[in-house]
Amino acid sequence: MGRGSSVLTRENGPQPADFADVRATNLAVVLRHLRTHAPCSRADIAATTGLNKATVSSLVTDLIDRRLVREVGMTENRIGRPAVMLVLDGSPYAAVGLEINSDYLTAVALDLAGERLLSWRRAFSGTAGQPGQAIAALAALARRTVSKLSHDGRRVLGLTVAVPGLVDADGVVELAAGLGWQRVDVRKSLLAALGEPGYPLLVENDANLAVLAEQRLGAQNGTGDLVYLTGGASIGAGIISDFRLLRGARGFAGEFGHLPLDPAGPVCGCGRRGCLEAYAGVGAVIRRALPDVGIETALSPSEFGPHMDEIQRLAKADDAHVLDALTETGAHLGHGIAILANLINPACVVLGGYFTDLAPWLIPSAARELAARSAAADSGGTVIVTSALDSSAAAAGGATRVLDAIDSGALPTPR
Amino acid sequence: MGRGSSVLTRENGPQPADFADVRATNLAVVLRHLRTHAPCSRADIAATTGLNKATVSSLVTDLIDRRLVREVGMTENRIGRPAVMLVLDGSPYAAVGLEINSDYLTAVALDLAGERLLSWRRAFSGTAGQPGQAIAALAALARRTVSKLSHDGRRVLGLTVAVPGLVDADGVVELAAGLGWQRVDVRKSLLAALGEPGYPLLVENDANLAVLAEQRLGAQNGTGDLVYLTGGASIGAGIISDFRLLRGARGFAGEFGHLPLDPAGPVCGCGRRGCLEAYAGVGAVIRRALPDVGIETALSPSEFGPHMDEIQRLAKADDAHVLDALTETGAHLGHGIAILANLINPACVVLGGYFTDLAPWLIPSAARELAARSAAADSGGTVIVTSALDSSAAAAGGATRVLDAIDSGALPTPR
Repeated sequence: MGRGSSVLTRENGPQPADFADVRATNLAVVLRHLRTHAPCSRADIAATTGLNKATVSSLVTDLIDRRLVREVGMTENRIGRPAVMLVLDGSPYAAVGLEINSDYLTAVALDLAGERLLSWRRAFSGTAGQPGQAIAALAALARRTVSKLSHDGRRVLGLTVAVPGLVDADGVVELAAGLGWQRVDVRKSLLAALGEPGYPLLVENDANLAVLAEQRLGAQNGTGDLVYLTGGASIGAGIISDFRLLRGARGFAGEFGHLPLDPAGPVCGCGRRGCLEAYAGVGAVIRRALPDVGIETALSPSEFGPHMDEIQRLAKADDAHVLDALTETGAHLGHGIAILANLINPACVVLGGYFTDLAPWLIPSAARELAARSAAADSGGTVIVTSALDSSAAAAGGATRVLDAIDSGALPTPR
Repeated sequence: MGRGSSVLTRENGPQPADFADVRATNLAVVLRHLRTHAPCSRADIAATTGLNKATVSSLVTDLIDRRLVREVGMTENRIGRPAVMLVLDGSPYAAVGLEINSDYLTAVALDLAGERLLSWRRAFSGTAGQPGQAIAALAALARRTVSKLSHDGRRVLGLTVAVPGLVDADGVVELAAGLGWQRVDVRKSLLAALGEPGYPLLVENDANLAVLAEQRLGAQNGTGDLVYLTGGASIGAGIISDFRLLRGARGFAGEFGHLPLDPAGPVCGCGRRGCLEAYAGVGAVIRRALPDVGIETALSPSEFGPHMDEIQRLAKADDAHVLDALTETGAHLGHGIAILANLINPACVVLGGYFTDLAPWLIPSAARELAARSAAADSGGTVIVTSALDSSAAAAGGATRVLDAIDSGALPTPR
């Protein structure tokens, strides 16, 4: 993900290559080929990648030594000699993602093939604005996760923490309104709390990680231009453009919740008027759909879940007021999505978080609004879909981020 | 610019490399090093790129054979032996960009070092909505340009046409409201009109090309995250994110002029209400600053220039009404820029087109509005600046697009 540090990167063009680079590149190519196509033979890999057979054999031996690949026996399901088939191994490894949000902590661990090893969630009250306490809770969860994985004989290749807020390139959280944080160096504090663990530790915006998970593990596997919208206490956008995460110059891209929809609109938590969040955030949805609930009072995030469940129940029962409320909410969401679509033209916008469960009632009006407001015909090809991942998308994305680093050539060394 | 076509590109990760690829990559690396650092010696190149000296010598010989590089004599301005210095040659080559707009046609040719070989502009009335006539005019300009360059002994390496509208990946203009075009296959028609010329011909959105020019030739040289705003009959955004042009799934990204600022705002040419263009487009600026001019009548693009000159003259004379009008225009522009900045967090937004001349009076209020509406402190680092290029930015960008292809390794073959 990092930008090249060479003096030659001005246009992100070709970088100097030498034979060591070629080997590292090709190791990663074979690994990624196996991720997509396993089981397959050495000859299959050679045929598809264009690498010669001797090179493939040598690369596969290296990957077997690193315990990233293993042989699974012979196949005869082809013309010619039976061939030894290869699959991803990775049994000694795990990639970990944690998510902190205003009402919960989540941990997800994946193996190298993206299969889930564990998925934990615990209630957490992060709204007190005490970063120290939150760091301690994150560190405890990280230790427990790593300990469980170690007990199962797995080595942790990296850990990424998802935070709902603006995160700069060094892992400093500039602002996380839902957590009451400003300028918290999460990465440094967590490294200290964990006593400098041996694995790489990163901190990243939750929407950025969720969109990585959606691309690798979700239904949008293979889409190069997509957006994930977190539907939580705040609404963030994770943007992948042309197969790469769009972070922006300081890492602050994807601030979607405060898109201004109407200068005469309702007051938002940020103090401005008419932000998208004030129309389509969780609080606004609850106030609109369940007017008897806390219309005058601020809701705490721990109260969101039961209310959203109630809204879903009423929608399924065709409650006319709730259906109208969701249609209206979807239209506001579609208004915001149209702005995003006109500016960056994604193939797909994935509704996540609390939106996931309500998506069947939100998407029709959102899609209508998107079509009406798109400069290009046919909404410029942008479709709105529901996340296929559960609410652990951001934590799964944290683990995905670790796998992405490995797929980019940062292979674990043999031990 | 194209996406990799390999089956392995799912995550845009490493591609298979073989020794031929290594050589092509390294040729491009040396060429790009020379573009930035020339004059320099073979030893300098080896030291900076990490390539070994024998490899550099062989690569340089190849580049000299292709007449992309030449030797310029010895230097003794260093410790040790005098070294032969190298510079970009490219004297037998030219890259061409054309721009079509509602009131003019432009041609720019650059040599390989980005120096301007010619810059032509002619009045043109493209508003008649007759694409055939416009294609004929473009073809005539292309022929005249290529003929002039051939006469000077240069071979055209490629030609790119800039169009103010939505352009898909195949060079089909989906929509160009200012020209009255819908679904015009400009690339195919122009190839036919030119009798299948021997050079690559591309069609691209004008803002996309202008931002390439700004990054390579303008003051933003080296910035990886920037946006260029065309200020013409329409307002488009060209977006470079992490050193790459952001096109979107169908190539329709950067539709900036129709950002909805206020649902109760003035009616826009697109039929919607409150679009940015209805507040800050050229027509709106003229109506606001020169209320006696055509406030009730639609202006034709050919009338814009003199009115904009008059506004600039009055602003320089501190005319209070015009200064207020420009302050208000800048605030609307800043409102739109804030939306862009919150979503994609560029380091820099460059005002181009007609905005360039008025920028001193637009930028202060635009920057205030950007700061007030940014989620991140300090506007997320985004600054608003004036284009250092003249109004031929998009055509220069067309030629830049050709140079980018060469820098990415599509080197001309020796003849």
